[in-house]
Amino acid sequence: MPTKSSPSSGRVTVEFQPIGRRVPVEGGSTLLRAAQQAGLGIVALCGGDGWCESCRVRIEHGNVTPPTDSERAVFSPQLLDDGWRLACQAAPLTDARVSIPPESLDALQRLQVEGRLASVAVEPLVQAYDLHLSPPTLQDQRADDERVKEALEEAGRPGVVIDELVVLEHLSRHLRQNHWDVRAVLRDSRLVATLPTACPLLGLAVDIGTTKVAAYLVDLEAGDTLAKSGAMNPQIAFGEDLISRIGYTERVPAGRAQLQRMLIDTLNEMIAALCSEASVEPWQIVQAVVVGNTAMHHLFAGLPVEQLARAPYVPALSHALLMRASELGLQIAPGACVDLLPNIAGYVGADHVAVILAAELWNSARTLLAIDIGTNTEITLAAGGTLSSCSCASGPAFEGAHIRDGMRAAPGAIEHVQIKDGELFLSTIDSRPPIGICGSGILDAVAALRGAGILNEKGAIRRGEARTRETVDGLEYVLVPSGQSGHGRPITISRNDVNEVQLAKAAIRTGIDILLDHASLSAGDLDEILIAGAFGTYIDLTSAVAIGMLPGLPREHFKQIGNAAGMGAKLALLSRTALVEATRIAGRVQYVELTTYPGFQSKFLKNMYL
Amino acid sequence: MPTKSSPSSGRVTVEFQPIGRRVPVEGGSTLLRAAQQAGLGIVALCGGDGWCESCRVRIEHGNVTPPTDSERAVFSPQLLDDGWRLACQAAPLTDARVSIPPESLDALQRLQVEGRLASVAVEPLVQAYDLHLSPPTLQDQRADDERVKEALEEAGRPGVVIDELVVLEHLSRHLRQNHWDVRAVLRDSRLVATLPTACPLLGLAVDIGTTKVAAYLVDLEAGDTLAKSGAMNPQIAFGEDLISRIGYTERVPAGRAQLQRMLIDTLNEMIAALCSEASVEPWQIVQAVVVGNTAMHHLFAGLPVEQLARAPYVPALSHALLMRASELGLQIAPGACVDLLPNIAGYVGADHVAVILAAELWNSARTLLAIDIGTNTEITLAAGGTLSSCSCASGPAFEGAHIRDGMRAAPGAIEHVQIKDGELFLSTIDSRPPIGICGSGILDAVAALRGAGILNEKGAIRRGEARTRETVDGLEYVLVPSGQSGHGRPITISRNDVNEVQLAKAAIRTGIDILLDHASLSAGDLDEILIAGAFGTYIDLTSAVAIGMLPGLPREHFKQIGNAAGMGAKLALLSRTALVEATRIAGRVQYVELTTYPGFQSKFLKNMYL
Repeated sequence: MPTKSSPSSGRVTVEFQPIGRRVPVEGGSTLLRAAQQAGLGIVALCGGDGWCESCRVRIEHGNVTPPTDSERAVFSPQLLDDGWRLACQAAPLTDARVSIPPESLDALQRLQVEGRLASVAVEPLVQAYDLHLSPPTLQDQRADDERVKEALEEAGRPGVVIDELVVLEHLSRHLRQNHWDVRAVLRDSRLVATLPTACPLLGLAVDIGTTKVAAYLVDLEAGDTLAKSGAMNPQIAFGEDLISRIGYTERVPAGRAQLQRMLIDTLNEMIAALCSEASVEPWQIVQAVVVGNTAMHHLFAGLPVEQLARAPYVPALSHALLMRASELGLQIAPGACVDLLPNIAGYVGADHVAVILAAELWNSARTLLAIDIGTNTEITLAAGGTLSSCSCASGPAFEGAHIRDGMRAAPGAIEHVQIKDGELFLSTIDSRPPIGICGSGILDAVAALRGAGILNEKGAIRRGEARTRETVDGLEYVLVPSGQSGHGRPITISRNDVNEVQLAKAAIRTGIDILLDHASLSAGDLDEILIAGAFGTYIDLTSAVAIGMLPGLPREHFKQIGNAAGMGAKLALLSRTALVEATRIAGRVQYVELTTYPGFQSKFLKNMYL
Repeated sequence: MPTKSSPSSGRVTVEFQPIGRRVPVEGGSTLLRAAQQAGLGIVALCGGDGWCESCRVRIEHGNVTPPTDSERAVFSPQLLDDGWRLACQAAPLTDARVSIPPESLDALQRLQVEGRLASVAVEPLVQAYDLHLSPPTLQDQRADDERVKEALEEAGRPGVVIDELVVLEHLSRHLRQNHWDVRAVLRDSRLVATLPTACPLLGLAVDIGTTKVAAYLVDLEAGDTLAKSGAMNPQIAFGEDLISRIGYTERVPAGRAQLQRMLIDTLNEMIAALCSEASVEPWQIVQAVVVGNTAMHHLFAGLPVEQLARAPYVPALSHALLMRASELGLQIAPGACVDLLPNIAGYVGADHVAVILAAELWNSARTLLAIDIGTNTEITLAAGGTLSSCSCASGPAFEGAHIRDGMRAAPGAIEHVQIKDGELFLSTIDSRPPIGICGSGILDAVAALRGAGILNEKGAIRRGEARTRETVDGLEYVLVPSGQSGHGRPITISRNDVNEVQLAKAAIRTGIDILLDHASLSAGDLDEILIAGAFGTYIDLTSAVAIGMLPGLPREHFKQIGNAAGMGAKLALLSRTALVEATRIAGRVQYVELTTYPGFQSKFLKNMYL
């Protein structure tokens, strides 16, 4: 029987890496519980009994309880010496820093990889030609490039250019290895790869978010998604927010290259896993499309980001960029083109261009609003054939940050809150005992408390209501008393928590209002509001309307469209027309700067009201 | 007074790196003398007195005499410990391996960097626009790329593309550092660099030979050559001939990358030296043109070379290739284009395209023959508006190799030989005491011996002639008796030496004959024979005609045009028209394979006669 807790008591602090979250822990509590308290989902398939080995962590600093029998069975003495432990077995004895490897962290994070896909005719960016070449002789000494070009000309593709070194580097060997029978893969008039004849052509679509990375492996000819994958953005080790990461690149000379490398390494792992899942080879991937917010786009491409962190927040690059897999170190066909969609502004990036593409805003005759909610919320209005966008600093409240009992959307998070006839109803992710509250839960809670009259329109908690209590920080509303929570502490909503939600919802609503005002429209003119992103998928729209985050339109006017950015990337990958549209969209969009818009301040303050 | 020799005697062997030449040395003889005996020119400005410090070498292996006072004055104890010595002071006590650094080796090698330059209108490949941009504000948040593109449009250059990562990477910083006043440098419609306003634009022309590398720094607007430089090709450490180097790339997995790296490192050193000489900065170099034989071209670009070493000897690439300085690691403006001229065939490379360009064969109405003599000799015939080329395996005899007393064209080499009225006249490079015989000398010697009847038409030395002597290897003709040579040994011409010259001249003459035959012409139809290359510049044309290497035309039909390959590269750098012509030339040239040409064998055998 493993020992599950040490007898020592007292309070210590555990810092979890790479997230960087610190949590106070009662002595004797395991690292797994500490992580759950911190809102971090560590994989623990066996429920913490020490036999599934899935909760491996590494102690970087501090003392923990000695290894249990379970841990000795899992780790060699060398690994134990190196600090490797099972989070469900080890308990901190002192303040400690613990690193959670991605394989222990990822699985239980909700990562959204599927969304609404506008239907397109499959018309991939690459074309393949199976060539049967005659080998060179002393009578026919044409160079390898010339031989391939002339064969392509005979196949109806004159004027092909073979100018990429990585392609030329492999061409001579491929031709000879395949006995002069090869499948030539062209992007427009350029040779990007040679494969064995009849080899299927694969593509990769990637959406790089500040927190998460989503990747899709696609059959370019059939249009099917063969596999999809989500992972944490490894740059999170250098700060959860963009500004911290940009700061890192300014402080450390090789920092930018390091952040780029981490991202590419993670993508390469994802590519290997996707290909393994689909039983294909990475070199069959002959085309990729990548989107991300402007900072992620720049860090992925290796472009400078300092100017994104300070006014007037201009991108180094707005236009679409065509890179080669080899120059990025992406382990697919080395000559494969990697298309980065264009950026609209410093805080309206290529991911939002992909949203506009997937939501078909660019060619709609209707009046549509697309909102991608996150720490930064991008909004685009399509009206009368024109597109206008803005960016709102909505903050991380909906990611569970800046909220005292906030956490990411992981098991045990309160995701929905209702008060009916004075009675409180909660639901948690995976129906686990509650350990915190995630974005959709906090939104619901504020709406429910306001609906029940427990909050006033300014967001203050009314004194004397049931479940409220006085603390040194002011009044709190107790969602879960200590006896009913998963960690034995109460889960509460404070005035400050409510204020964070007010700031977030005011930012988003002010963005919507200003875009409408700029187009001389009102909310009633909107045919549809499309809500993209993981958070947007899980929120209760009634709550969002109730607190005034979204305009008060009938429910059928709203559509939750999931990871539209990833879907847009996939669209551009599968359709030449969509890619061309994507490159045009950025030029067509009018970017509206909110902070200098007339009346911004008063609009924002008005929208703070609940 | 420095000690110039050690008392020890006996014979030891010294191997010189990176050339790889071994030479037996009498004990007590200095390394400088040993190098001279090996035909290697080490810089010794003071004549070996130990005060000029120019003959620095490094002992890699073996024992030498202790450091002299002169050496202690030049080298720190650390450097002496590391094996650094002056070649004029140190004498080997045992077999030794000695490395000669380029700065000690190069200067006295005759490196040809100037040649005949066809006159062209200066019309460089890049154009510059001085831009005065308005800085971004919250009211004008255009991305950096967009701001530059719109300013270029206002300056009359719409549609400029900024798609190269290394350019974008530096653009944001350059704009801010230069307070939004920059000189934008365009190659066609692409931005390749941003410089301070009014900064002069420089270009680099490079000719990479198997043995030597020549580089020219050019003012792109004025057309002037600001500096020129020649260096040994560092790949020589892996074999003097191409086949050895190709073999190395096949044996060693990273060998190709290593050979490329060495070449780039040498070029970077040359660039730094050229810029220092001209008081300019390497980042001002915004365009480069590179030529070389097909193998050097491929190794420079990082392309596979195995297929060049075996029949049917096809290049991986024949077309012109446009690379970027950054992908090569060339330390000039990172976005600068590096144009590699096209290759005609496996043994008629981009350097010969440059010869055709410089010699204006491509647009001549006359019947011209251009010959670039080397280990491999390339010949092109221009007749009736068509161009035909061939490649002759002329061997290294004219580089001094395969000739027992042969050496490169360095001080002390016999460069000219005449026999007048039975009397022998010799001249050496720099009038130094003779230590060997270089290419032009051996050519003269064979012609003179044949003219004097000492050789018969088959190349055999007549028994009983003055200055002949019998050895175990057969009859020899003594050019310099032991008492008169610089090293105390006789310098002789053997039957084998004569045979090497016969093979070389037969190869060249057969090439000429077949090209003429292929065009249904005879030698008498030729208006001019242009002879390119370092060796071609120094040979005595009368001797070359006398032994039948060149057709017997009047002297005024011949023109020695120097390093025409380098000149062609410079032309392409300075003239957009010339570059376009160069890319066309390769496609226009008909390559004639000699070995399969009807009657090749009998023609070759006939041409062996003197």
